[in-house]
Amino acid sequence: MSTKATVEKLVSLCKRRGFVFQSSEIYGGIGGFWDYGPLGVELKNNIKQAWWKAVVQERDDVVGQDAAIVMNPTVWRASGHLDTFADPMVDCKECKKRFRADELAGAVPASAHGHEAEAAKVTRCPECGGELTEPRMFNLMFRTYVGPVEDDASTAYLRPETAQGIFVNFANILTTTRKKLPLGIAQIGKAFRNEITPGNFIFRDREFEQMEIEYFVKPGTDEQWHQHWVEERYNWYLGLGMRKENVRVRQLDSEELAHYAKDTYEIEYLFPMGWSELEGIANRTDFDLRRHAEFSGRELEYFDEESGEHIVPYVIEPSAGVDRLLMAFLMDAYDEEEVRGETRVILRLHKDLAPIKVAVLPLSRNEKLVPPAREVWATVRKQWMSQYDDAQSIGRRYRRQDEVGTPLCVTIDFDTLEDKAVTIRERDSMEQVRVPIAGLVDALRERL
Amino acid sequence: MSTKATVEKLVSLCKRRGFVFQSSEIYGGIGGFWDYGPLGVELKNNIKQAWWKAVVQERDDVVGQDAAIVMNPTVWRASGHLDTFADPMVDCKECKKRFRADELAGAVPASAHGHEAEAAKVTRCPECGGELTEPRMFNLMFRTYVGPVEDDASTAYLRPETAQGIFVNFANILTTTRKKLPLGIAQIGKAFRNEITPGNFIFRDREFEQMEIEYFVKPGTDEQWHQHWVEERYNWYLGLGMRKENVRVRQLDSEELAHYAKDTYEIEYLFPMGWSELEGIANRTDFDLRRHAEFSGRELEYFDEESGEHIVPYVIEPSAGVDRLLMAFLMDAYDEEEVRGETRVILRLHKDLAPIKVAVLPLSRNEKLVPPAREVWATVRKQWMSQYDDAQSIGRRYRRQDEVGTPLCVTIDFDTLEDKAVTIRERDSMEQVRVPIAGLVDALRERL
Repeated sequence: MSTKATVEKLVSLCKRRGFVFQSSEIYGGIGGFWDYGPLGVELKNNIKQAWWKAVVQERDDVVGQDAAIVMNPTVWRASGHLDTFADPMVDCKECKKRFRADELAGAVPASAHGHEAEAAKVTRCPECGGELTEPRMFNLMFRTYVGPVEDDASTAYLRPETAQGIFVNFANILTTTRKKLPLGIAQIGKAFRNEITPGNFIFRDREFEQMEIEYFVKPGTDEQWHQHWVEERYNWYLGLGMRKENVRVRQLDSEELAHYAKDTYEIEYLFPMGWSELEGIANRTDFDLRRHAEFSGRELEYFDEESGEHIVPYVIEPSAGVDRLLMAFLMDAYDEEEVRGETRVILRLHKDLAPIKVAVLPLSRNEKLVPPAREVWATVRKQWMSQYDDAQSIGRRYRRQDEVGTPLCVTIDFDTLEDKAVTIRERDSMEQVRVPIAGLVDALRERL
Repeated sequence: MSTKATVEKLVSLCKRRGFVFQSSEIYGGIGGFWDYGPLGVELKNNIKQAWWKAVVQERDDVVGQDAAIVMNPTVWRASGHLDTFADPMVDCKECKKRFRADELAGAVPASAHGHEAEAAKVTRCPECGGELTEPRMFNLMFRTYVGPVEDDASTAYLRPETAQGIFVNFANILTTTRKKLPLGIAQIGKAFRNEITPGNFIFRDREFEQMEIEYFVKPGTDEQWHQHWVEERYNWYLGLGMRKENVRVRQLDSEELAHYAKDTYEIEYLFPMGWSELEGIANRTDFDLRRHAEFSGRELEYFDEESGEHIVPYVIEPSAGVDRLLMAFLMDAYDEEEVRGETRVILRLHKDLAPIKVAVLPLSRNEKLVPPAREVWATVRKQWMSQYDDAQSIGRRYRRQDEVGTPLCVTIDFDTLEDKAVTIRERDSMEQVRVPIAGLVDALRERL
């Protein structure tokens, strides 16, 4: 379903139904920034909660944290971002348009930041044919100033990845949790990259949200844990309903690896622009802890009781982008089918991801039906994110819920006034089942 | 319990048990930025989820959204932040220390940004007695640059409040949700203020998280909705266990009001530094929508079917700071009591807020007890954030859980091997009850 036509329909659906808006749209927007509307924020929260449940709550070897976006700038010297987190850019001397030299050359995939730039092989502007400048390296970190004076001493950066916030807290967390290796630290949070050419809807943003785990292991066990995490994360996508034919795991070639990585796998999704990264799972070795130990003068080590030695752990890093996951889940769920001569649009979202779990619908806006329907809604909404809708025909209201992925509709009709029962209608099968109001919450819970 | 001694104990507990760390601590930190450790992030998430459930999920008149932190800079011209979101600062010519002139003068409370600054009445440095400079206005918005060129055209700001992200989406959300007034839009997200003097632990940060609702109403109904929200929000704190004697509602005097506000109430907590704001509930009138309509050229109006007129809604804004709420909830929950000659430290956190809901504890690290205990844990952690602990005496482990507010401990002892039952121990009463393992999840759910 990931055709170009689907994307256009999906982007239109996202705007029309309140999933995603252009940021500051009334002012003409701002490139690379997006807002999530009422349904989008629920979907995004559900993705984050499903991830947190799987990698923190249900595991015995991972804990969470939440670091600040602005950190002491030495963090970025130690991590290498100040030196290497840059893209080569060229300008057209005629039309003044700006391009990424590596993209013009077609040499490096969009996601491979941290590389040395390859020399651009294109010398003419692809838009107007004008002459291009020599490539200049452009650091992708957003710069700001902390405190009232804007100078070098007060310069700080918006983090380009959440990962470093974990490395600098490693020793604190090891001590306070009294955990042993292997130990994972998980974090969800905003990151910022001043991309020269953001694009593909919410795939490549300047402000985005990451879900990252740094999983600290004894050196020598890193390769087996790397395999573990590739499988775990791949299965997480399938478990949330992503179609197997649209997801793949790819091991990066050695020339695609970031400078800190010994080995990296990507979980990729078949986006309309081709297979693109959903999540990278890198073996970062002991690179980061050693760098931070060096720059901070602190010992970032682990005392291994078995060997009696102090070791610097290796790190396996599953790192996913929430916004592009949201885009992939939406695309993968988008479906159309013919029902009685009409096209039914359905988002076949997994029930854990669906923004609205239950819609409560009186058969019509009848004065006898509305009060019991609102009473049912009052009960339902204590348990689940839900909606009440009594406008237009029941058929149109079912379609409106199908279109945003609501798994269950509860319909109150005139029989309800007699039998104190309601109809549960299931999104995918459109099957209907009658249940007493007294047992409704249990019946919904069974299905959600 | 909000004495100075309690604060010191609490700050120490926060560090020792992994609630709150100084950001980038291994590099000496960075003023006004904090990280949340494994327990802190759970507590913070629980506060946010309790709020979202109360104001979005359970209400029929509020929807959520999530706007980008970086917005089109015209937003801040329209909102007035570029002109008025400033504090007056003075420097000591001798020791070079920097102060907020209004704080030296003791004239304006810390939370009252957006005011015209009052002239400083203090002319000598309170630290060294040196001469002070004249006050200069300093804008509190963090500045950055979007795109590769750092100039006026590319200047953007980190949002100093989440509110404006709601105002600029008002028309989009009104259309896509097809809702009528009164309609609230709720949002949780980071905001940034380049405070001259951050302080009081996590009370006044440079990076912090807000939970804001903009509640759009028909003019003329604004005063009654204002009262509604003051009551709702006050009761939310009490409902989550905050002690009545530590929370109060205060109507601001007219000279304390922000330039956009017709009337404002603060919900205040008795912090060790005195009564301070947890949440402000302002009547912003139609100020923001009118300004954005003017600056964007869009009609930000509502068609009222009753009167047949286009109106500009008034706005009631309940605006709370997550970080200071977290601090207040921790302080309020902190308690000490004597138990058999020993001091028991307890965080009496509401069960919805407690970071860990259930601890699973074998009586000892015995080879017969550990396997069934881990089996119990595997079941429990599918449902709740939980911990397993088998180190040191059972008494010490109870204390460790009390100290971080875990409402329930489940103990596996030698009887368990025979009767397939375990003991649930309740944090506050220390009462113990025996339940069969088969019924454990139900028994826990009843209590959580």
